[in-house]
Amino acid sequence: MAIKTKQEYIESLKQLKPTVYMFGEKIENPVDNPRIFAGINTTGATYELAEMEDYRDMITAISPFTGELVNRFTLPAQSIEDLVMRVKLNRILGGYTGTCFQRCTGLDCLGALSIVTHNIDRKYETHYYDRFIDFLKYMQTNDLTGNAGVTDMKGDRSLSPHEQEDKDLYLRVVDKNKEGIIVRGAKAHQTGSLSSHEIIVLPTRALREGNEDYALAFAIPADTKGLIHIVGRSSLDTRELEGVDCGNIRYSKYCPTLIFNDVFVPRERVFMCGEVEFAGEAVGRFSAYHRQSHGGCKAGKIDAMTGAAQIMAEYNGTNKVGHIREKIVDMIHRAETLYGCSLAASYEGKKEPSGTYFIDPVLANASKIHEGKEMAEAGRLLVDVAGGYVANLPSDKDLKNPEIGPLIQKYFKGVADVPTMNRIKMFRLVEKMVLESADTISDIHGGGSAAAHRLTIYRESDINYKKRCAKRLAGIEE
Amino acid sequence: MAIKTKQEYIESLKQLKPTVYMFGEKIENPVDNPRIFAGINTTGATYELAEMEDYRDMITAISPFTGELVNRFTLPAQSIEDLVMRVKLNRILGGYTGTCFQRCTGLDCLGALSIVTHNIDRKYETHYYDRFIDFLKYMQTNDLTGNAGVTDMKGDRSLSPHEQEDKDLYLRVVDKNKEGIIVRGAKAHQTGSLSSHEIIVLPTRALREGNEDYALAFAIPADTKGLIHIVGRSSLDTRELEGVDCGNIRYSKYCPTLIFNDVFVPRERVFMCGEVEFAGEAVGRFSAYHRQSHGGCKAGKIDAMTGAAQIMAEYNGTNKVGHIREKIVDMIHRAETLYGCSLAASYEGKKEPSGTYFIDPVLANASKIHEGKEMAEAGRLLVDVAGGYVANLPSDKDLKNPEIGPLIQKYFKGVADVPTMNRIKMFRLVEKMVLESADTISDIHGGGSAAAHRLTIYRESDINYKKRCAKRLAGIEE
Amino acid sequence: MAIKTKQEYIESLKQLKPTVYMFGEKIENPVDNPRIFAGINTTGATYELAEMEDYRDMITAISPFTGELVNRFTLPAQSIEDLVMRVKLNRILGGYTGTCFQRCTGLDCLGALSIVTHNIDRKYETHYYDRFIDFLKYMQTNDLTGNAGVTDMKGDRSLSPHEQEDKDLYLRVVDKNKEGIIVRGAKAHQTGSLSSHEIIVLPTRALREGNEDYALAFAIPADTKGLIHIVGRSSLDTRELEGVDCGNIRYSKYCPTLIFNDVFVPRERVFMCGEVEFAGEAVGRFSAYHRQSHGGCKAGKIDAMTGAAQIMAEYNGTNKVGHIREKIVDMIHRAETLYGCSLAASYEGKKEPSGTYFIDPVLANASKIHEGKEMAEAGRLLVDVAGGYVANLPSDKDLKNPEIGPLIQKYFKGVADVPTMNRIKMFRLVEKMVLESADTISDIHGGGSAAAHRLTIYRESDINYKKRCAKRLAGIEE
Amino acid sequence: MAIKTKQEYIESLKQLKPTVYMFGEKIENPVDNPRIFAGINTTGATYELAEMEDYRDMITAISPFTGELVNRFTLPAQSIEDLVMRVKLNRILGGYTGTCFQRCTGLDCLGALSIVTHNIDRKYETHYYDRFIDFLKYMQTNDLTGNAGVTDMKGDRSLSPHEQEDKDLYLRVVDKNKEGIIVRGAKAHQTGSLSSHEIIVLPTRALREGNEDYALAFAIPADTKGLIHIVGRSSLDTRELEGVDCGNIRYSKYCPTLIFNDVFVPRERVFMCGEVEFAGEAVGRFSAYHRQSHGGCKAGKIDAMTGAAQIMAEYNGTNKVGHIREKIVDMIHRAETLYGCSLAASYEGKKEPSGTYFIDPVLANASKIHEGKEMAEAGRLLVDVAGGYVANLPSDKDLKNPEIGPLIQKYFKGVADVPTMNRIKMFRLVEKMVLESADTISDIHGGGSAAAHRLTIYRESDINYKKRCAKRLAGIEE
Repeated sequence: MAIKTKQEYIESLKQLKPTVYMFGEKIENPVDNPRIFAGINTTGATYELAEMEDYRDMITAISPFTGELVNRFTLPAQSIEDLVMRVKLNRILGGYTGTCFQRCTGLDCLGALSIVTHNIDRKYETHYYDRFIDFLKYMQTNDLTGNAGVTDMKGDRSLSPHEQEDKDLYLRVVDKNKEGIIVRGAKAHQTGSLSSHEIIVLPTRALREGNEDYALAFAIPADTKGLIHIVGRSSLDTRELEGVDCGNIRYSKYCPTLIFNDVFVPRERVFMCGEVEFAGEAVGRFSAYHRQSHGGCKAGKIDAMTGAAQIMAEYNGTNKVGHIREKIVDMIHRAETLYGCSLAASYEGKKEPSGTYFIDPVLANASKIHEGKEMAEAGRLLVDVAGGYVANLPSDKDLKNPEIGPLIQKYFKGVADVPTMNRIKMFRLVEKMVLESADTISDIHGGGSAAAHRLTIYRESDINYKKRCAKRLAGIEE
Repeated sequence: MAIKTKQEYIESLKQLKPTVYMFGEKIENPVDNPRIFAGINTTGATYELAEMEDYRDMITAISPFTGELVNRFTLPAQSIEDLVMRVKLNRILGGYTGTCFQRCTGLDCLGALSIVTHNIDRKYETHYYDRFIDFLKYMQTNDLTGNAGVTDMKGDRSLSPHEQEDKDLYLRVVDKNKEGIIVRGAKAHQTGSLSSHEIIVLPTRALREGNEDYALAFAIPADTKGLIHIVGRSSLDTRELEGVDCGNIRYSKYCPTLIFNDVFVPRERVFMCGEVEFAGEAVGRFSAYHRQSHGGCKAGKIDAMTGAAQIMAEYNGTNKVGHIREKIVDMIHRAETLYGCSLAASYEGKKEPSGTYFIDPVLANASKIHEGKEMAEAGRLLVDVAGGYVANLPSDKDLKNPEIGPLIQKYFKGVADVPTMNRIKMFRLVEKMVLESADTISDIHGGGSAAAHRLTIYRESDINYKKRCAKRLAGIEE
Repeated sequence: MAIKTKQEYIESLKQLKPTVYMFGEKIENPVDNPRIFAGINTTGATYELAEMEDYRDMITAISPFTGELVNRFTLPAQSIEDLVMRVKLNRILGGYTGTCFQRCTGLDCLGALSIVTHNIDRKYETHYYDRFIDFLKYMQTNDLTGNAGVTDMKGDRSLSPHEQEDKDLYLRVVDKNKEGIIVRGAKAHQTGSLSSHEIIVLPTRALREGNEDYALAFAIPADTKGLIHIVGRSSLDTRELEGVDCGNIRYSKYCPTLIFNDVFVPRERVFMCGEVEFAGEAVGRFSAYHRQSHGGCKAGKIDAMTGAAQIMAEYNGTNKVGHIREKIVDMIHRAETLYGCSLAASYEGKKEPSGTYFIDPVLANASKIHEGKEMAEAGRLLVDVAGGYVANLPSDKDLKNPEIGPLIQKYFKGVADVPTMNRIKMFRLVEKMVLESADTISDIHGGGSAAAHRLTIYRESDINYKKRCAKRLAGIEE
Repeated sequence: MAIKTKQEYIESLKQLKPTVYMFGEKIENPVDNPRIFAGINTTGATYELAEMEDYRDMITAISPFTGELVNRFTLPAQSIEDLVMRVKLNRILGGYTGTCFQRCTGLDCLGALSIVTHNIDRKYETHYYDRFIDFLKYMQTNDLTGNAGVTDMKGDRSLSPHEQEDKDLYLRVVDKNKEGIIVRGAKAHQTGSLSSHEIIVLPTRALREGNEDYALAFAIPADTKGLIHIVGRSSLDTRELEGVDCGNIRYSKYCPTLIFNDVFVPRERVFMCGEVEFAGEAVGRFSAYHRQSHGGCKAGKIDAMTGAAQIMAEYNGTNKVGHIREKIVDMIHRAETLYGCSLAASYEGKKEPSGTYFIDPVLANASKIHEGKEMAEAGRLLVDVAGGYVANLPSDKDLKNPEIGPLIQKYFKGVADVPTMNRIKMFRLVEKMVLESADTISDIHGGGSAAAHRLTIYRESDINYKKRCAKRLAGIEE
């Protein structure tokens, strides 16, 4: 049976022994660390849905590769329906977890590789596609989570990988032998790398001749020797460690930096090695899929934010005020814009030579450009509606203090028929959704910068068609 | 054969003898009036496409009502594909004409009535649906254009129809007899009423008990006795009359005010009469369809505007400048946002009891809210890119003056290898696309005001679902 | 007496015999042409205020150059008070005329030249400043209006003046003799050139060695031989010619293209000739003053637009609706932003070596950047509030038609106690304020493009100070 | 000598014994608590500047009340210059501290009371003004910091103070005697209450008859018996407690909730008691001053943010990229807009009957409306420019770990000639400036909500003047 329960998923992670550091210390059992577990638990929701009657049919599908029922998070889209279902599923999970569930980038890699390995093989008569399909079946059969190792550290952005003073600032091959290759470098913002069984690596940018060592794609287990996960800081990270004032009572996000300290990758797990002209396609496909995915999950997060805004207004007694209503409408409008463009990108998808379906990149990027600006605005609107105690709210520890606890209960009351604790909990959730950095910064930088999205829609639009329209109307002969 | 050529369409209009006034004078043959003809010619493009190999298959479909091939502009959507094809078709026509082609509102009425008459019949055992289908077949068989008589004059907006001092400020029944009804009132902004064979009337707002006289839907020929078309002013209206400085060399738009001066409507053409509780549904369905349509046509207009921006940059020698490129990307992004949301609204359509498909109203309105703000911004960006001579450009008459013509040719030169006349023509097109009022004001008010769209997305969104998401995350028991 | 009445001003213009073309025909008496007169009448308002008790003290001041009372529109700022008063005066005139009053650019030139001629003299021991002061006294003593000849035609924007295929695409000296110089070229968008007694010419951009022929400043009467004023088209231009549907019943704007067809400039009227390194300063000073001036006049225009919005809401019966109120607040906020930044720029002005006061360029440009975006938005908001009949409103000629006039009176009624004609007049004014191109395009391109304003605030800001702030806070040693 | 050094200021706070709770525990010596001290240290900067040669003359002035040199933070504006200097000083301090320096609200209270107590006395022949002046002299002579106790807890916002189920949700008098009054309630967001010597209380809203118990103004020492300071949570609060990853190495902000648990206020410190019609004026004056102050300090904070953006671009090697430059310009533009409007509000100030100068409320609110939206946008732009490591950056503790420290040094390198540590420090500062909640939430809610600012500019604008402008232009007789 290829579908894991959430419990089985968590157990399977406990079998791994990754090298992990956080706040200067080595973490022996990351699953037991409450901060990391909050992230694992969020990815767990993608397993949990497969156990829930309401969502089971939505989140699972028969894989043409294995013939078995699999979790959609392991299935590169084989139809328009697959593309569309992904966006809808992501929206549900966004509302269900209120944060990033950290299983999308792995699927984005699977989708990208299912197209690009096929294209490389067609040109070079290599056998990457077969290798990849073997890996894909392994992922599906065991219902594994993959993590995307894409973003390199990049060093000086004005220089190419091979022009950097330190050649390792982009991940590269440093040695090869019959059994495989040795790689060195680091990948930034590895969302959920410790919630993942496998690390799937792609190049971070288009490459040219001379960059062969950097044209690399492969997959390795998250606890491979030489891999070091450094869990950095996010704005509310100590809350989960202390177990207090978490806001979102179940879920959170973390994004380690992942260092590849001369790591061995076996031959059968290498999916690109030196084919520089395909590096750009690989990262382009990945990014486009990822922008599609955000159109779903971030709309879902705004759903939870909109619900929080409406509740806070009700708790504060402002829900009948005109401008409060308008702000809630503004939030809904933002969610639907992200969602609509991403959904359209999916419905307008096309089949690639390998059989995988790819979304319309212009519409997917149109969605992401909105995200990069409008998630921040949705957060600002939520703070505006909720009120000032998104900051400065007394701790739950204060509530338990016998001297001041009752005073807080008294003075943080909103409308008379709502328990003070509900209002405090909702303020705390708003703080989490607006001010937790690991999640909110990804609205701006996840899936590439706004500048990259803008360049893409310009390149992928048919500007000559548009020019012909204008010339004909103006009566200019060509 | 149910498909008219453009020429047959124009000939068919010449058979009509509507009562028309413009600038204080009676117009005997509106088809011969150059200003009105520019509008008719634009609607003509919807016939022309059916003659063009590239578009014929797109713009025509087999009608399940007549069994014949018909123009999609006479076919209420019978499938998701019909909904989607409409948006794509509208985008093409928007780029092809650079303005409103004035045949959408008629189809919006057909769509709305094909749903609502069925619903009324289900409740009241009336026979509106059969009457409507007879009318629909007549429209399809003769490939006719319909005009939507929806927006009433409204008088004092703080009062209901029956509370107005002058009861006629909303169109109403003033008399009835066996053969039919007599109606009085006026309808505002009747886009293309003289390009239409039939005027299709719907109520303009939700109605309550006491408003029975206003709950009216019917269709009558555009030259029915008592109907008066008053073609008002738009910002560039005299250009077409003079035949000079038109900008868009073929196409334009006009929107008469239509007065119903005690007009008789035969019984078989009455599709609602007194069923107040369906008035809101009728206008709601109409508006939602119309908002969907704008997501296509206005994206298409931005295509032409974007082309104009790119060309102007090339003519000016600024096409390599960073901020110019960014502004063009901003224009593309706006087009794709309108289009994406409208397309998604179509793909997410649902079948109504009558068999007609209806779009997702939240996504359709999300598109329209963007239009109301972003078309103006697209125009501003175009002016920014094009340069100041969107205003103050010498007339083509000046170009023909032997003394100053050569000086204008000399001094309005842009880059050396582009003829000055091309640059002048493109400036003139930009002026038309940005500053022609009949078209641009509809970006803001067409299909209802922004406030109406906002109210709709709030009402149609499931706010309780969103609240449940937030409460679960915050740990609030319900 | 140095102060002219409005009547004297108009009479004085009748004495001039400029060469004028409009719509392909030569205009012998421009003052008698109703379209041009509408512009002259607006400039006339700057004279009229000096006759009005309420404003006389505000608009006049003692000139230190002549010792006489002069109109402030002839006085380069000699104090902070002069700078501030200008912005306040402009705001009043903006509300008084509802459009551009076309006398600011002349003053901007006087201000720029009063600084730059002095600076040139200090470097080269030339005598431009004395010449200029003589000219200035002449302007003051006769209360004359000046027009700024700044914007060159520019041809290919990617090339310098001397690199153009046609060297005349920037105005240049083509010959010199003892008595003076001969110039050739053209200047674009000469706002009010026929409402002006003098044309004051400055370079349009920074120049480098090799561009000596283009480094030119001078002043000549508007009817100098060889000067050709071509009055181009604006969007509502035929309304004034027909004398109907004008909207703004008194005032309008026009901006000829001015061709210098080998024009002689006497030596004593030449204020720069070949000093390339001062060209950039001249246009920079001019532009900065002009951006300051817009912060006043455009705020004043928004005052009139806001009044129109409020009145339309009252006429429509929507003045109590929440979102209507919010839109009016949005309009006010835009006006105050333009005004506040411009006022601050004035209060923060500094004395230049010549004694003239110059505004703070960062704040002046901050104001103008808002104008370039927000005037369009203010117009959009006004249309949103007013309703659709900003377009398509029947003509006043229709109102006079005995058959349809009474029907229009009946059906265009708003709230019961307001005469229909008032509502129609107000719609017409809104059309004029939002859609008249000569005025609205200047919001975007007047005083240079947004890109120029943005570059200026970057250059004039002390980025190193800002970097020091950040480094100190982060604990980075320099 | 009335001017304290920073050291004397800190010592003076150590003399106070306030009742303080944080995270469930009582804090005996708040000055020694590193989190609270980071706030005290920021207020300390207002003392430090008075010791610095560059700023001494700017931050001090002779008080007409004491005849001595005082810190401007104790001096209600006695001239336009005082108003203007405040904004300039705040801008410097904003750049100097990168956060809120927590001494403004006290001055806002002093300003408001110096006007309102005088106005009450004029109506009621009370002696509040004299009492207040005595208090003011005490503040000045001892160079004390005041804290504004304004924002009540408010409970159900749809109800008035006396309609609340719990009457204490707005601070009120519960008893009176000859010596003074007893008050009960709580005040929210008491920025810097433990950095202050005195708590100055004003009503939070306009009041009507029946609310006499709530019409209260007074001042008491911060360690008065019954006063409880509860220091709540902010997003990065544990960093200062751990002494690691602080970002801003010196400064921070905290905002306790302050509970008045039956606190005695001596008669001579009561400045309003029951005069309900002055409550609105008191809070209105306070808020207007506070909005003015934000126009300075937040512009200063953007200065530091802009510097950080520029530095990050240089460290990343992106400082020559066009869109990066544009984003930095966008940041500068936002700072200048806040600053310009606030400066103009100051220059346009007017003298009140008591002699204190009051700013122009329309311009001050215009500034604040921008702040409420644009500070968030400035932060978003900074994140966009800086890159993703605003989140997820390894801890300084990781840097000290011998195994991973060198790897972090290696992989977080940007351009070759900048030490990695500098780049890490700057990322950390960006995190602090964008994601620290106590400071950033005040951009939205500090000085009242956006809705309040909008209402103010509508009320304070002369809408009738604007209507007259429009009517005259349209030719409508009044």
